[in-house]
Amino acid sequence: MSVLQEINLNVRNMKPLEYSALAKRTNKIKEELRQGVRKPYREVIDASWGDPHRLGVKPLSFVRQVLAACLYPQLMNTDKLLEDVRQRAQRLLGRCAGESVGSYTATAGIPEIVQRVSEFITKRDGGVPSYPENIYISPGSQWALTNIFNILVNPESSTRTGVLTPMPCHCTTTLSIMGLGAVAIPYYLSEEQGWALQVEELERALETAKKVCNPVALYVINPGNPAGHVQSRKSIQAVIRFVSEKRLFLLADEVYQDCIYGENSKFVSYKRVLAEMGPPLSDTVELASFHSASKGIMGECGLRGGYVELVNLDPAVMKYIYNLFSIDTCAPVLGQIALDLMANPPQPGDPSYPLYHQETQHIRTTLVQNVKRACEVLNSLPGFSCQPVEGGAFAFPRMYLPLKAIQKAKEVGMQPDTFYCMRLLEEAGVFASPGCEYGQKEGTYHIRFCIMTTQDIMEELLRRLTDFNIKFMKDFS
Amino acid sequence: MSVLQEINLNVRNMKPLEYSALAKRTNKIKEELRQGVRKPYREVIDASWGDPHRLGVKPLSFVRQVLAACLYPQLMNTDKLLEDVRQRAQRLLGRCAGESVGSYTATAGIPEIVQRVSEFITKRDGGVPSYPENIYISPGSQWALTNIFNILVNPESSTRTGVLTPMPCHCTTTLSIMGLGAVAIPYYLSEEQGWALQVEELERALETAKKVCNPVALYVINPGNPAGHVQSRKSIQAVIRFVSEKRLFLLADEVYQDCIYGENSKFVSYKRVLAEMGPPLSDTVELASFHSASKGIMGECGLRGGYVELVNLDPAVMKYIYNLFSIDTCAPVLGQIALDLMANPPQPGDPSYPLYHQETQHIRTTLVQNVKRACEVLNSLPGFSCQPVEGGAFAFPRMYLPLKAIQKAKEVGMQPDTFYCMRLLEEAGVFASPGCEYGQKEGTYHIRFCIMTTQDIMEELLRRLTDFNIKFMKDFS
Repeated sequence: MSVLQEINLNVRNMKPLEYSALAKRTNKIKEELRQGVRKPYREVIDASWGDPHRLGVKPLSFVRQVLAACLYPQLMNTDKLLEDVRQRAQRLLGRCAGESVGSYTATAGIPEIVQRVSEFITKRDGGVPSYPENIYISPGSQWALTNIFNILVNPESSTRTGVLTPMPCHCTTTLSIMGLGAVAIPYYLSEEQGWALQVEELERALETAKKVCNPVALYVINPGNPAGHVQSRKSIQAVIRFVSEKRLFLLADEVYQDCIYGENSKFVSYKRVLAEMGPPLSDTVELASFHSASKGIMGECGLRGGYVELVNLDPAVMKYIYNLFSIDTCAPVLGQIALDLMANPPQPGDPSYPLYHQETQHIRTTLVQNVKRACEVLNSLPGFSCQPVEGGAFAFPRMYLPLKAIQKAKEVGMQPDTFYCMRLLEEAGVFASPGCEYGQKEGTYHIRFCIMTTQDIMEELLRRLTDFNIKFMKDFS
Repeated sequence: MSVLQEINLNVRNMKPLEYSALAKRTNKIKEELRQGVRKPYREVIDASWGDPHRLGVKPLSFVRQVLAACLYPQLMNTDKLLEDVRQRAQRLLGRCAGESVGSYTATAGIPEIVQRVSEFITKRDGGVPSYPENIYISPGSQWALTNIFNILVNPESSTRTGVLTPMPCHCTTTLSIMGLGAVAIPYYLSEEQGWALQVEELERALETAKKVCNPVALYVINPGNPAGHVQSRKSIQAVIRFVSEKRLFLLADEVYQDCIYGENSKFVSYKRVLAEMGPPLSDTVELASFHSASKGIMGECGLRGGYVELVNLDPAVMKYIYNLFSIDTCAPVLGQIALDLMANPPQPGDPSYPLYHQETQHIRTTLVQNVKRACEVLNSLPGFSCQPVEGGAFAFPRMYLPLKAIQKAKEVGMQPDTFYCMRLLEEAGVFASPGCEYGQKEGTYHIRFCIMTTQDIMEELLRRLTDFNIKFMKDFS
């Protein structure tokens, strides 16, 4: 029965990812390398994801020790685990039904962990209170984001629901909006000004949108992905005033809040700025803010633990959010525990602190160094120009591709930057993703690659990119 | 902006769970007990979930050892882990990007684990081939089920999409259908015949449905939840012929396939029966079959690992399923690993086999014994009648409530069986869930409780229920 014509039109409208062809080819190349096929490289550097462990960053010992002890409590009887690891695991297990991480938890997560997350937010926001009943832990922040979008979409209306989304934007967010039958309305970030978010552009996007849909929400991601900008307090204030005036629901994706590299950049949460703006804004603007254990220094993408904090929502709406979230019962318990450890890491004086401090400092120093090196090298490459990477996980340089390369790409039926990425993969063994995946101004081209890696891999990636780019630009000059 | 009237109508239409009030009260009672409030019991027995670890069933050592070693590979250097545990962990880690369970995986799961799952299915089905490209690992089977429903729903049509669902039915399934704006069309299982699924009833439900919606799919759960029936091969054949004739998509929820207690019951999968029926049925009936690491002997609900196998789907539709599943990137890696261990447990001769065998046998023997005792006791209680529990995780006896109890329930604004459950919780500290949560014939009442527990807890639960029931029936006689 379900011939193609009969399946959910919203799902059919989801744009297939450019990424897929590149990912497929990456897997094939890896397979060829395993079988001994000779290539100019011995390994593919897969920098297409925001996935630090994939790129050689090591998990934090404290995190893994507590998780392992929770899974297999017999470990707590060995002297291999430090006292605070044992205590933390013991305490967390005491909060699991049947003292097992194999039990379901409450829909919003283990209450004590939710409490811990709310304390973390309060502390982060300089004392602005956070209430546990407004927090839902989810299997990754994207899951929570999709479910909050779902609440906002009106499937009964003849006019489609619209969500203002940045251009460029992380592609699963736009996919998720399309999958719900809503429309992602692009507002352009200003590349020339370091990918700044400008309120005039929000105004323009909103007015255009009103002609084709019913815009109900604004999605922002700060620090950016793929653009590595970090919003200032002033910029956030302007956005808040805009959504208030236009009566839009505000979705703030803040999963990279722990990844700040710019010397003058600082992460300030939307929640904090909103609270500090005072009434009536602080009492009325509806905000959903997202965070995750996947990103940042911990980088535990595979555990699938994220959360959303909801601010100023009607209690009646909160009930429906509970119903919707309860369908999948609960987030993975180990992802929940990772959030507990993120919210409440070892403190000076704790037995695990010295190693924890050393490991996190090492990662932070490496990332700052990687960003510095990446920007230096990218801005020295012919045909490349890279805005400062102030935060996030990615470099997203612009490429000025030669006309001949653009023509060649057209001939083979590819977007020009996909063509560049495919060649880069094939010839240099670097998997970066093309700007067209994220949306970009007509006629501009970009690539995105992850900078959350070791110093060695970063240098090797930049070396391969440099050599490849010289050859590419010459071939098509 | 999002006043109640403006949020997604489908989400608003989701029926709030009866369960919630009971769960809330359970938490309160637990809190009171912690604070030393005196009650006739020292602990609440929470038998409302299908969650074995919650009810004292111990996790399998092999499973937990491999998972712990994957999380914290330094453990592999100790002599505490057996050789096959170390080898398995080593091998699985070798399949994770960056050798870390903290990395994302392919959308469908780690390819080697997907392969292992397909081999497990082939073996289970007596050689009927299963293809890895038709399998998607997901964060629990419910997530996969919701997403397959999503594919089938037509949001553009003025007629709502209908899904035939059993009555009684596990409530998150109906919630998930409602949340998508589709209609769950109940077909009644025949309690008098051990909750058998009857094709005449499917016919009736379908004809009724056609008046109000566009029925596109049939959902079955075998073994049952909350009804503990197990379908015979003949019954499955009849269902397959029905969906073929009516051109319905078939969704087979088979998460309890490992939980069979009836002496004459045997689990046979829909996939196998379909294949064995031969063409044209075996080439045309579209089937999605679901399984999970949460249920069965392993009982790892908290890890959130399930899968769906798709049969006879148009390759074009499979592409859209890929797109839809890719939004959440991938299932939790530790849930994926749990599926690997379920699909490929220790074999005779492996160092871990003796303990694994002993633990699983102990659980199996206990469950058979629990079911036997539960049915004996329930059928001896005044006002109770329980059909044989052939499989699944629950007893679902019918209660013939006294008229006075029904009147009293009405007075306090509760469903009669919710009223019974609330009293049972309050007075005896047993949290069971009411039949009205699952749907039942008008004027009939039931309760559901989990039988996946230890022998001690089962006996204590039955003792408390017996004593409470005598008092309740007397109070309202």
